Amino acid sequence: MSSSGVYADTGVFVCFEGGEGSGKSTQSRRLREALEADGHTVLLTFEPGDTPVGRTLREIVLSPETGELSDRTESLLYAADKAEHVDTVVRPALDRGEVVVTDRYVDSALAYQGAGRALDVAEVEQVMRWATGDLRPHLTVVLDLEPDAGLGRFEGRDRIEGESLEFHQRVREAFQRMAAAAPDHYLVVDARLPVDEIAGQVLDRVRPLLDRAAVAP
Amino acid sequence: MSSSGVYADTGVFVCFEGGEGSGKSTQSRRLREALEADGHTVLLTFEPGDTPVGRTLREIVLSPETGELSDRTESLLYAADKAEHVDTVVRPALDRGEVVVTDRYVDSALAYQGAGRALDVAEVEQVMRWATGDLRPHLTVVLDLEPDAGLGRFEGRDRIEGESLEFHQRVREAFQRMAAAAPDHYLVVDARLPVDEIAGQVLDRVRPLLDRAAVAP
Repeated sequence: MSSSGVYADTGVFVCFEGGEGSGKSTQSRRLREALEADGHTVLLTFEPGDTPVGRTLREIVLSPETGELSDRTESLLYAADKAEHVDTVVRPALDRGEVVVTDRYVDSALAYQGAGRALDVAEVEQVMRWATGDLRPHLTVVLDLEPDAGLGRFEGRDRIEGESLEFHQRVREAFQRMAAAAPDHYLVVDARLPVDEIAGQVLDRVRPLLDRAAVAP
Repeated sequence: MSSSGVYADTGVFVCFEGGEGSGKSTQSRRLREALEADGHTVLLTFEPGDTPVGRTLREIVLSPETGELSDRTESLLYAADKAEHVDTVVRPALDRGEVVVTDRYVDSALAYQGAGRALDVAEVEQVMRWATGDLRPHLTVVLDLEPDAGLGRFEGRDRIEGESLEFHQRVREAFQRMAAAAPDHYLVVDARLPVDEIAGQVLDRVRPLLDRAAVAP
């Protein structure tokens, strides 16, 4: 289980991370639209749940009806979702030379399972790295937002959203720490900026990645 | 992630392992009956599936309708089942000083996922050890049987039973190897022996474990 990371040498892998209500799905759609307008083939996907087995796992981990789950169980269900997502969706698209844009990836698991729960972060990371074959995004965009601002947008909260403000604060700090540790592969954006301005900042960081010869077209 | 193993210091943890149709459920029931007749409190359980979330995971991994799963996904689903089983069923019963008898445990994951699939066994083991907090049975009984003898008993086979004879042969050899490496914690029995004779051999190995003062009654 290497911790140095594997970067695909065909295709471009971009990930959006951030707390609840930070605008990840809006920005990932905006990025797809802009890149498709440039003529690129883009696969827009998400975690957890964007595979047949992933949908069942997503339901288990997010449904309030699930009740208590052991922390390790929860981490391993997220890891299983990631393994299936990477092996059957992300990797094949990168191998075809496409741009893959995912709404959440390994950093979410590390932030929520590691910083949020009582587990040893290094051990959770080992499991997540094994699940994904240590495949890393070329760029991870962190949409940074105060937890109370993001959570305020929802009425009915799921199992994770229903956690305390302190939990979500630890999650935010975990994203910030990961970004600070590897600035070449991260872009942190203030999620309160206008949607167009964020989309512009993201595109400015993604376009240079597309210049590599391996990427279609 | 230690690989030396953790043995509960209250209660006694016994596991039955072996291929399909080797008589694990019969022998685990027989052991429970004999120990209860001696006045012990016995919890009889199994993997995968003996928790609410485990039932869903068991359905995913065993149902032919699931179709192809990534090998890593399958391993992680088994690991999640184990984490929930140990944290919510096995550990609490051992803490109460009970005898826990389980039909399959970590060795099944190592034999089926490691030897049977194309994964690195050492990595699968690390994941399974993490999932279970490296809790080991005081005794694992391997019911040893030629795969064609065991598989012959079934008409409708599930996803795992439907694998090739060579797959099941590798699984058998994996159980034999694990037992040979730690004879103090294993008993290998020829599964073709009469049921009563097997039950007697098992009881002869389990009774001395019960003499420790910590075990009820």
